[in-house]
Amino acid sequence: MLALDAKAQDLLFLDGHTASSFKPDPVSDEQIAEIWELIRWAPTGGNASPGRLLLVRSPEARERLVAHMGESNRAKTLAAPLTVVLAADTRYHELWPKIEPGREEAAKRLEDDPPARERLAMLSGTLVTAYFLIGVRAAGLAAGPMGGFDRAGVDGEFFPDGRWRSILVVNVGVPDEGSYKQRSARLGFEDVARVV
Amino acid sequence: MLALDAKAQDLLFLDGHTASSFKPDPVSDEQIAEIWELIRWAPTGGNASPGRLLLVRSPEARERLVAHMGESNRAKTLAAPLTVVLAADTRYHELWPKIEPGREEAAKRLEDDPPARERLAMLSGTLVTAYFLIGVRAAGLAAGPMGGFDRAGVDGEFFPDGRWRSILVVNVGVPDEGSYKQRSARLGFEDVARVV
Repeated sequence: MLALDAKAQDLLFLDGHTASSFKPDPVSDEQIAEIWELIRWAPTGGNASPGRLLLVRSPEARERLVAHMGESNRAKTLAAPLTVVLAADTRYHELWPKIEPGREEAAKRLEDDPPARERLAMLSGTLVTAYFLIGVRAAGLAAGPMGGFDRAGVDGEFFPDGRWRSILVVNVGVPDEGSYKQRSARLGFEDVARVV
Repeated sequence: MLALDAKAQDLLFLDGHTASSFKPDPVSDEQIAEIWELIRWAPTGGNASPGRLLLVRSPEARERLVAHMGESNRAKTLAAPLTVVLAADTRYHELWPKIEPGREEAAKRLEDDPPARERLAMLSGTLVTAYFLIGVRAAGLAAGPMGGFDRAGVDGEFFPDGRWRSILVVNVGVPDEGSYKQRSARLGFEDVARVV
């Protein structure tokens, strides 16, 4: 019944796997930009647009990153062609004039309510994180998302002004033969849904 | 350069729009189940699988829901063919035996650390919320996601045992002619990305 064709279903969902090791093929900034050009059209709260990407490319930056990651995530992150830290910009409203003029009043309300502003940043920034994982697959690449890191440590290291906040660290590349573990099962609709 | 074909890019991202009003065509539980069968394969943290769906279908339940929603979201929610509350199950580890045997120790650690368990539930539950928005489009339908509601109110109304927590309320249906506002611009890659 789905409108999405079978090949796209396979690419994005049914055959997509989390990858833990990659072929040496590089992943360019241009490839990540192309993923962004696609996923940026998916919704955020009131088009708040807080999603941000830190491309951790240099060996030196990679070492700074893994110092704040769990032991089991370090070697694969150092070896990945590219690592992207998905983040939320807590001052997203400052960029609104670029995308939607005439929202000065809404921006002012958010400026004066940091808790509400930061909640929306994390909520919509996390939606963008999921769109990015789908977008990596849309580009024919595989993603290795990792939540096992010290958020305060990564934020202090890369976002010392406190404006961006890390959400997920994602390795990106072309998966190699040994990368895929056998995929675990998933919950059925009857496990996750209720009707009222 | 993308591997995803142009038609699928259009369906999921480039032509997809947030919808605020819908044709009377019903949306069945079976359609939502089919969306779930697709999106359940996308990643959650360690396959934690906390994403849940409350299908708010009956007029009575719809009234109970909109009582906790912002004024501007009420009429369109009452009129939508179906409204789904995306939620996170904070006791997701209890369902792990269904999907991945042998994780008793990890489940025990989470049982004893409610803050860590709830953080992961909300993070991965929000990823699933984004997958659902993409999945609605994959089914040829349109989604109207809304963050403007009283979370504590909705949770108290529908999840009184405190186990599920609401994330986003989403109207689902076939959009009507007047549904789409002209889409606002989006930030460019140069606005959102840094390379280190």
